[in-house]
Amino acid sequence: MRPRLVLFGDSITEQSFEPGGWGAALTDRFARQADVVLRGLSGYNTRWALKVLPRAMEGAADADADPAAVTVFFGANDASLPDQLQAHQNVPLDEYQTNLRAICAYFKERWPSTAIILITPPPIYEPARIRDIYGVDDPSRQAERTNEAAGSYAQACIAVAKELGYPVIDIWTKMQEFPDWQSSALSDGLHFTPTGNKILFDEVVKTLASIGFSKESLPSDLPLYHDIDPKDPMKAFGA
Amino acid sequence: MRPRLVLFGDSITEQSFEPGGWGAALTDRFARQADVVLRGLSGYNTRWALKVLPRAMEGAADADADPAAVTVFFGANDASLPDQLQAHQNVPLDEYQTNLRAICAYFKERWPSTAIILITPPPIYEPARIRDIYGVDDPSRQAERTNEAAGSYAQACIAVAKELGYPVIDIWTKMQEFPDWQSSALSDGLHFTPTGNKILFDEVVKTLASIGFSKESLPSDLPLYHDIDPKDPMKAFGA
Repeated sequence: MRPRLVLFGDSITEQSFEPGGWGAALTDRFARQADVVLRGLSGYNTRWALKVLPRAMEGAADADADPAAVTVFFGANDASLPDQLQAHQNVPLDEYQTNLRAICAYFKERWPSTAIILITPPPIYEPARIRDIYGVDDPSRQAERTNEAAGSYAQACIAVAKELGYPVIDIWTKMQEFPDWQSSALSDGLHFTPTGNKILFDEVVKTLASIGFSKESLPSDLPLYHDIDPKDPMKAFGA
Repeated sequence: MRPRLVLFGDSITEQSFEPGGWGAALTDRFARQADVVLRGLSGYNTRWALKVLPRAMEGAADADADPAAVTVFFGANDASLPDQLQAHQNVPLDEYQTNLRAICAYFKERWPSTAIILITPPPIYEPARIRDIYGVDDPSRQAERTNEAAGSYAQACIAVAKELGYPVIDIWTKMQEFPDWQSSALSDGLHFTPTGNKILFDEVVKTLASIGFSKESLPSDLPLYHDIDPKDPMKAFGA
């Protein structure tokens, strides 16, 4: 049976099959080895995600096989400032950690053998957020999200991962190592450009490899074309 | 339970999650409504596909729910010329039809309620095939595939679809209606550019709509962000 990867998260997961998206790139990479299942919920924070978790996972796994891995990628909305335009998405830092623990506990209970990979919220470029929300460049305004707040949630996510012993991708730090990440990796100060998607994709591939899930180690589904003998093709199919 | 779309075919299906790919675009379009399952087998013709069909479909559907639809997209390899470099991929026209009927019969038997959508082989641009196969532009050489042969297989596929009463996408004809299709839609005279992927994506979306599977008619999985009341978000989650 082909192993499955489940992608659970907010809009950065839901949009991961747009051109250049990290979810599509994973599907492409493991096209002959694994199935990628998309469970992205735009705008959701961990509080809402926790409410819908069992329903969100309907059909995500076969009854008789746990997925190989699930990515849990929330925090960008939780980190919305509690006194700005997106205040209703805010979840306090403590509750964010409690919710992450509960989401992980749900997966551990339901799919005991599934590897849980946490992903921190990404960095934020505030001027682009102001432009996106208010339609103007206006440095006197306050963005609805700040990079500093996102960084606190990233640290909180890393702390939960360490506490539980799960792998974590610190995309908040990683992305900021890239030149001009503000515009090269982010399209609107929050969501990912194809370059930003590629940064996350590379990190997910590395993390999957660290738990033994890689293109090199997974068996391929059915004979590959270059292994089929042109002089006797049917041999590859047991005929 | 989310409905499923299964994509079954050769390399043009296997590569459909590359940037701009038609499979990724379907996943993105139905991100909150359906799961797309990739079963692409590069280089395969209908003879080989038929041999592996039950194994290829392992994990493609839940035991208790037929997929909503399956695309069957073979013929580009069957139509390889029997006296050229890819002769071992060739399947005679009659056998191609017999194999298509057998593939459809398998799906009908296994998944009685699943809509089967046939897709014809795409058009071929021979000069680009010569360049791809022999590494040079050489009009004195013969390509391993011709547009004329692909057209015959497309007609044969349409005939099978009519005989069985299944919807069919004639991508051979459709693609040739686009200006400069030879280079705008095809990357190497056979596989699709993002523009070619978009042409097929649009046809698949139209055909799915004709069988009642559309963004407008399918329910969305879980409350959408714009339906969540900022003043009382938890109301959307029954709290």
